[in-house]
Amino acid sequence: MSQVYDRVALIGLGLIASSMFWAIKRAGLAGEVTGFARSQTTRDTARKIGLCDRICDTAAEAVKDADLVVLCVPVGVMGDVAAEIGGSLKPGATVSDVGSVKRQVIDAVSPHLPEGVHFVPAHPIAGTEHSGPESGFAELFDNRWCLLIVDEETDLDAVQKVSDLWKGMGADVEQMDADHHDLVLAVTSHTPHLIAYTMVGVADDLRRVSESEVIKYSASGFRDFTRIAASDPTMWRDVFLSNKDATLEILGRFTEELFALQRAIRQGDGEHLHDYFTRTREIRRGIIEAGQDTDAPDFGRGKAH
Amino acid sequence: MSQVYDRVALIGLGLIASSMFWAIKRAGLAGEVTGFARSQTTRDTARKIGLCDRICDTAAEAVKDADLVVLCVPVGVMGDVAAEIGGSLKPGATVSDVGSVKRQVIDAVSPHLPEGVHFVPAHPIAGTEHSGPESGFAELFDNRWCLLIVDEETDLDAVQKVSDLWKGMGADVEQMDADHHDLVLAVTSHTPHLIAYTMVGVADDLRRVSESEVIKYSASGFRDFTRIAASDPTMWRDVFLSNKDATLEILGRFTEELFALQRAIRQGDGEHLHDYFTRTREIRRGIIEAGQDTDAPDFGRGKAH
Repeated sequence: MSQVYDRVALIGLGLIASSMFWAIKRAGLAGEVTGFARSQTTRDTARKIGLCDRICDTAAEAVKDADLVVLCVPVGVMGDVAAEIGGSLKPGATVSDVGSVKRQVIDAVSPHLPEGVHFVPAHPIAGTEHSGPESGFAELFDNRWCLLIVDEETDLDAVQKVSDLWKGMGADVEQMDADHHDLVLAVTSHTPHLIAYTMVGVADDLRRVSESEVIKYSASGFRDFTRIAASDPTMWRDVFLSNKDATLEILGRFTEELFALQRAIRQGDGEHLHDYFTRTREIRRGIIEAGQDTDAPDFGRGKAH
Repeated sequence: MSQVYDRVALIGLGLIASSMFWAIKRAGLAGEVTGFARSQTTRDTARKIGLCDRICDTAAEAVKDADLVVLCVPVGVMGDVAAEIGGSLKPGATVSDVGSVKRQVIDAVSPHLPEGVHFVPAHPIAGTEHSGPESGFAELFDNRWCLLIVDEETDLDAVQKVSDLWKGMGADVEQMDADHHDLVLAVTSHTPHLIAYTMVGVADDLRRVSESEVIKYSASGFRDFTRIAASDPTMWRDVFLSNKDATLEILGRFTEELFALQRAIRQGDGEHLHDYFTRTREIRRGIIEAGQDTDAPDFGRGKAH
């Protein structure tokens, strides 16, 4: 893979930005990568571990002369950051982001971008339950999807270069419109996270089962929930608040189905339960065939073995 | 580890029984292990892969002269199997089981056991999403908990030997009473499974998001749900029907919490969400410290890497 941009600026230095830096370096996709984080501690850590070629003390300095600026901050502050850097962007530069919600990010960021600067919103479908500048690694995006949001006004050359960058970092790229993205993610990510958070909260709060029991016997299923319920609280708060409508719609469908299963349990309707559980098994097979997980027996095991 | 029993009979040859066989052999815990499964196909497969020292064509034949008989069938048919073998059990033998629900299994099995036969119900907290005689492996129980159900009538020598067997297979053993077991498992296993099944069912059923989209973008969280929602449908139908009260109680608590979070999203109450998500992160740490999972970044990754 050859160089795609002369200079890339990463604003916000958490899991995604730090992984982007290592993936960009791995493939030599940029001449220089600058970085900025609001917190002094994060900037110090970044400098210490060699994250980014140059860490700047202001966002304006980081984006100066950058050909691509990627906003890697929580969805709720994307607009503020865009306002802060808008005046320092190089004419003809491209701004992108990695937010898990697209409509609200587009509405918040676009008004702050000057004429002649291109905006190509992106969302890499990859992550771990860890966060912060030290959590990144070059392989995070390998074999994962990155969705680019494109409409009739988007500059196609700018899209092509952002797409080349993500492919260079190991991802497969696809285009989608913002509203459909937000609905798809409400199903595949946002609602599952909310449900996992809820289940873990219930277990924590239960008087008659001790926390140590919950922890000891977590390999029976609960553990899989705690992994996703350990994700960054600020990021997830912002996701739910900014993808409110789609999340509430899917939650509505979820509780409807849950009540139907609950009634089947209460009424002893084994056939309903068996049919439902057989159907869900098929989806799992599809995911394995699509290369988004492996068939290695894992549930209840952990990787200590 | 030295031999615990001269002869062990495994009734039902799925994931747990086949793993028990390989774990028993690994440590030399029994002189001979016999096996029986209702299905001819399963018995043929077992013979082909060398599962059990001897596969019998009837349950009665398998349990004849056995010092320990372990019922490894779905919870809903435990009573039928006990009725079938009751007359063939050796005096002084111990019967155990591996069911995920204890109260109903005890009520179903006990009446069929003759005087002088001991009953030590057990539940190994281990599994994978795979099932069948070929899914077992010797390491399944290593570092996992096995709960033994003990009350004032249980024969303590019989408990000791069952405990020795499980420890020999790699498990840690703890005792619990049946009702508390069923509540703990409703929290850590049964309700999480029902919720995962529900979420996967919702995704499958949604008209505006295609199944291929759900599958492609599953690495964003959904995938973790499909793993547990791929578990054996018959086993899980029986679990929910036989642990009805505890599961419905926890489901009630779950929907209560879910509605509170849903309202926080609707009202834009970011503080409520952030506090909740911060609290759930702590539980994850406890699970890692307790050795029931590792801290390796996994969510959104898969083991292809």
